[in-house]
Amino acid sequence: MIKTGVIGYGYWGPNIVRNFSANSDISVEKVCDLSEKRLNEVKLRYPRIKTNTDCDFILKDSKLDAVAIVTPVFTHYELAKKALQNNKHIFVEKPFTATSEQGQELIELAEKKELQIMVDHTFIFTGAVRKMKEVLDNDTLGDLYYYDSVRVNLGLFQHDINVIWDLAPHDISIMDFLLDNEKPVSVNAVGTTHVNKRLEDVAYLTINFDNGFIAHFHVNWLSPVKVRKTLVAGDKKMLIWDDLEEDEKIRIYDKGIEVKNEEDVYNLLVQYREGEINIPTIDKTEALELEADYFVNCIKSNKKPVNDGEAGLRVVKVLEASDESVKNNGKEIKL
Amino acid sequence: MIKTGVIGYGYWGPNIVRNFSANSDISVEKVCDLSEKRLNEVKLRYPRIKTNTDCDFILKDSKLDAVAIVTPVFTHYELAKKALQNNKHIFVEKPFTATSEQGQELIELAEKKELQIMVDHTFIFTGAVRKMKEVLDNDTLGDLYYYDSVRVNLGLFQHDINVIWDLAPHDISIMDFLLDNEKPVSVNAVGTTHVNKRLEDVAYLTINFDNGFIAHFHVNWLSPVKVRKTLVAGDKKMLIWDDLEEDEKIRIYDKGIEVKNEEDVYNLLVQYREGEINIPTIDKTEALELEADYFVNCIKSNKKPVNDGEAGLRVVKVLEASDESVKNNGKEIKL
Amino acid sequence: MIKTGVIGYGYWGPNIVRNFSANSDISVEKVCDLSEKRLNEVKLRYPRIKTNTDCDFILKDSKLDAVAIVTPVFTHYELAKKALQNNKHIFVEKPFTATSEQGQELIELAEKKELQIMVDHTFIFTGAVRKMKEVLDNDTLGDLYYYDSVRVNLGLFQHDINVIWDLAPHDISIMDFLLDNEKPVSVNAVGTTHVNKRLEDVAYLTINFDNGFIAHFHVNWLSPVKVRKTLVAGDKKMLIWDDLEEDEKIRIYDKGIEVKNEEDVYNLLVQYREGEINIPTIDKTEALELEADYFVNCIKSNKKPVNDGEAGLRVVKVLEASDESVKNNGKEIKL
Amino acid sequence: MIKTGVIGYGYWGPNIVRNFSANSDISVEKVCDLSEKRLNEVKLRYPRIKTNTDCDFILKDSKLDAVAIVTPVFTHYELAKKALQNNKHIFVEKPFTATSEQGQELIELAEKKELQIMVDHTFIFTGAVRKMKEVLDNDTLGDLYYYDSVRVNLGLFQHDINVIWDLAPHDISIMDFLLDNEKPVSVNAVGTTHVNKRLEDVAYLTINFDNGFIAHFHVNWLSPVKVRKTLVAGDKKMLIWDDLEEDEKIRIYDKGIEVKNEEDVYNLLVQYREGEINIPTIDKTEALELEADYFVNCIKSNKKPVNDGEAGLRVVKVLEASDESVKNNGKEIKL
Repeated sequence: MIKTGVIGYGYWGPNIVRNFSANSDISVEKVCDLSEKRLNEVKLRYPRIKTNTDCDFILKDSKLDAVAIVTPVFTHYELAKKALQNNKHIFVEKPFTATSEQGQELIELAEKKELQIMVDHTFIFTGAVRKMKEVLDNDTLGDLYYYDSVRVNLGLFQHDINVIWDLAPHDISIMDFLLDNEKPVSVNAVGTTHVNKRLEDVAYLTINFDNGFIAHFHVNWLSPVKVRKTLVAGDKKMLIWDDLEEDEKIRIYDKGIEVKNEEDVYNLLVQYREGEINIPTIDKTEALELEADYFVNCIKSNKKPVNDGEAGLRVVKVLEASDESVKNNGKEIKL
Repeated sequence: MIKTGVIGYGYWGPNIVRNFSANSDISVEKVCDLSEKRLNEVKLRYPRIKTNTDCDFILKDSKLDAVAIVTPVFTHYELAKKALQNNKHIFVEKPFTATSEQGQELIELAEKKELQIMVDHTFIFTGAVRKMKEVLDNDTLGDLYYYDSVRVNLGLFQHDINVIWDLAPHDISIMDFLLDNEKPVSVNAVGTTHVNKRLEDVAYLTINFDNGFIAHFHVNWLSPVKVRKTLVAGDKKMLIWDDLEEDEKIRIYDKGIEVKNEEDVYNLLVQYREGEINIPTIDKTEALELEADYFVNCIKSNKKPVNDGEAGLRVVKVLEASDESVKNNGKEIKL
Repeated sequence: MIKTGVIGYGYWGPNIVRNFSANSDISVEKVCDLSEKRLNEVKLRYPRIKTNTDCDFILKDSKLDAVAIVTPVFTHYELAKKALQNNKHIFVEKPFTATSEQGQELIELAEKKELQIMVDHTFIFTGAVRKMKEVLDNDTLGDLYYYDSVRVNLGLFQHDINVIWDLAPHDISIMDFLLDNEKPVSVNAVGTTHVNKRLEDVAYLTINFDNGFIAHFHVNWLSPVKVRKTLVAGDKKMLIWDDLEEDEKIRIYDKGIEVKNEEDVYNLLVQYREGEINIPTIDKTEALELEADYFVNCIKSNKKPVNDGEAGLRVVKVLEASDESVKNNGKEIKL
Repeated sequence: MIKTGVIGYGYWGPNIVRNFSANSDISVEKVCDLSEKRLNEVKLRYPRIKTNTDCDFILKDSKLDAVAIVTPVFTHYELAKKALQNNKHIFVEKPFTATSEQGQELIELAEKKELQIMVDHTFIFTGAVRKMKEVLDNDTLGDLYYYDSVRVNLGLFQHDINVIWDLAPHDISIMDFLLDNEKPVSVNAVGTTHVNKRLEDVAYLTINFDNGFIAHFHVNWLSPVKVRKTLVAGDKKMLIWDDLEEDEKIRIYDKGIEVKNEEDVYNLLVQYREGEINIPTIDKTEALELEADYFVNCIKSNKKPVNDGEAGLRVVKVLEASDESVKNNGKEIKL
């Protein structure tokens, strides 16, 4: 039984507590949050869990094996460091840390202490992303052309981070998981501010790779419609993931082009292939349920998760590079 | 009656000939094309029109008042120059010219000769774009946040131009028409090649403006689905134009955000406004029919069209800057 | 404070208990259900509520003012009768009763006892149906042509009632609410069984009115896709309600036809009117929250609700007539 | 070479002339129509074709092998009879005849004269319907539950026939083609009139079969939206055909229900099967092109087409029964 404390019971914390509580190998012992009101909700729902507004109540409790840190990103480093120093495995909300230096230091500390870091890249545990992973690992799509993602809606405006740090971690961590063989080399990003002059609310990121493959991300807090769409195109097939679809999240298109006379680049004969579309079934198990299970297994087997500190750090590095590119008018920033 | 010759009877030429022929003030006298087969189609359909494979047959005919140039872009400059030198008004397919120098020279020549140049930015004559122009001119949207356009599909691959020069002229000319008060200052673009290693087949362009407003364009020949969508968001309302919709091309969203305590930027209170959606009726008159009429009027009244050489040149400058930015890894290029 | 007992804690009961508990004028004192397991869920969530598997525990408790009956339809009559005899207002799940005789008897008993009956036609409290009521009461649609409803999906198969009694009460009660001036005169229905040979799983109902207006309902447990769509067409405007849409549930079409020469019926000149489409905002308050409030108000003010026993009875009469028509090969059955 | 005359050059006639002319085995020799204006269009487009307003010009021309009758339904019988009497194969617009007696007489006459009748059930030659035929013939769907069709839009109002005779022949002929093993036994229909008091503009038809399978058709001239959707559900798979989709006309759902304990009908355990969705490619060849070819082949090989007079007559019998049912308040009419 992994005795766990949860720090932060705001928007996402209740989902962590609910899923960790439901896991037969995890025991949520304590929750802390700055708000007494939220702690009351914990007590009402989970009379057995102890609560406190001081997080040392969790961090210094030697009986706890693990700590989930579900707080704003600027607090992750201090909390995570103290948790690791106190010999606890950590489960950290994404993005992992506010800077790559912080992430690097936490990874080294965890290494030294022989503790696990899991960064909560929840989406990689969804049925849709796991299906896409299967499709890509089977080489169903062939050599990849590009990855195009749109994640836009109206709000929620964050006060401490811009739209890149708010929305892009989802997509960057998903792509990092799906395309574990592709190594990004640089980032271009443009963005603009309208509502809060300190923080971008519309941004476009491009991640460049060595081999012609590119990934592009549109993140936006000022769209009248909600869109959550990703397109992955390869030379064999192409795939669209629409996360707002209830039952038809993934469509695999047997479409593409075929070049007939490659030797004569000035007169390429390009033919279109228009085959069938397949909409596979998607497992609907809640992502956090699987992730809680995986957290347990990684701790028990002393095995690094795919969403370990390194994965979290890779995402943070792209976010940092994006910010730097935005500040430098879209200049390419090497990773 | 404006006596007109049409050079080029490939993909688009037949639409020009059909619409010009239907206009009671235009008489299409001659058509030329390199292909005898296509000229035979002209003869079959329009027995009255004379045809020839040599375009001097049109360019040097002193009885013609105007010439429509409906050929690949790399031929525009030579044909247009000769037409102007021979005292003919010109109607030129988009993009206007292959370089901005060529465009500038043609404009000066037309000026000197007191002739009209109309660049065939057809889309600005569609019911949808005219409705958007009305919406924007009425300040229905308020101060603009951004312009986001997606124009993607499978093929048609061009042999002489990349996807930017093929697809983006539509959207850049539309935006240029809609936002005639906004002045673009620079361009960032990224792109990649897969099929024809000389020509980009996927590209993302950003046009930057002075005031925080940005425009972004996704153009792509390698998408399994066809998308033709433009989003224009302002602080009063937001608009989506989906050109693939038969009857509901434009949706105006009374949605947005309201900032309550602007003085305290660290604790902005942002509220969402979710009002009704309006789908106006769109006039379905064929765009080229209206454009032919407008061409006549501009010639008769000796008045420059909105889609004159300058408009064509503005588009070409953005295309050139985009190419340069792509070649320089997304670097900002001043316009 | 209206002290209330709830009988039945299956699929719908938890929603009743949650909304009644949240109402400041209702106190849910007791819940009963045949399943101990479900009662344990009540205790866990609402430690203050008393539970029992014997419903006399509620029906004979003289301290209770009202009883909510959230059980299968074949039990409604016995439970409701006993509740009324014991001087309790009743809130009854739909359909009201298994036969119209039962419904009539309950209405008379409530009348005599001066008690309120509210039938849980939940949908009439949704934002979408209230918006449609407003649209119809304002005569926005003009004289009505027809009402067409499709409510189909895969399952849930019921064991005690056919698809007509399962799904059609929603739509019949909605129409009854919306069109309170139109009086149905007869019913035609066809249906067929496939899975359970006793119970229809696919059925089509038509309700006929005196004035040419007709209403048609497609209810189906064997559809691969879920559809919840209603079309109400009038001579001024037409309306579509798609309940599966998240944000665009109602669309009002300014479309129709205009007859130019009505005197000459053999050569009617019919013109189409294609105006704009309006998608109004819909209040998202949970329907049961409003219904609970309305239940309180009706009891306090001693005023019959719109969804009273009579409304429930009108629905049951249509269901009975539908069954009879199905058994008689679609024969018209007078109401 | 089959020498052919075409009677009627209104809405559909031009398509017949164009496709017959394009067929290398058909020579369209003559066209007649009551309108000189329409005949001028023929001359302009097909200078070789002779035209006349008197149809004897075609019917009595002994050099013609076949006649296409593309006129209003009330004229079919007289024209077809005269054509057959003059030894011509006939291609007749749908519905075949205005009464089943007329249809029967024409079939017998053709039989005696050893001539072919092809009724223009165009839809059965579309890629979508041919794909459905393939799916059904392969038993992909299993035992069929029902056939549900919706064909609604705004107008076109016809002056001589009601909405049943206008729209339902499409769907009845499609179903007749797809389900050639199922024998309809009776019809129930309801309908109502609003605009033209003589002619129904909204109607619902049910065709009953012996084995629990039913087919239902919604035809409507007063819908604000155009819908062309057909659902065919079987116990193995289910299929939806949406004819307004450009590229995704047919979707095959691997969905259904499974009954676990069939012996105990009072406690059926029903399980849902939610498998993948397949969207096959559809051949886009124009239906009339294939139909023209098939007409040639049937004449040459002296083989009755699937869409022969009998097929046409089966459709007419359903239409007659529908009218009778509507007049008798939805009463079941045996076929």
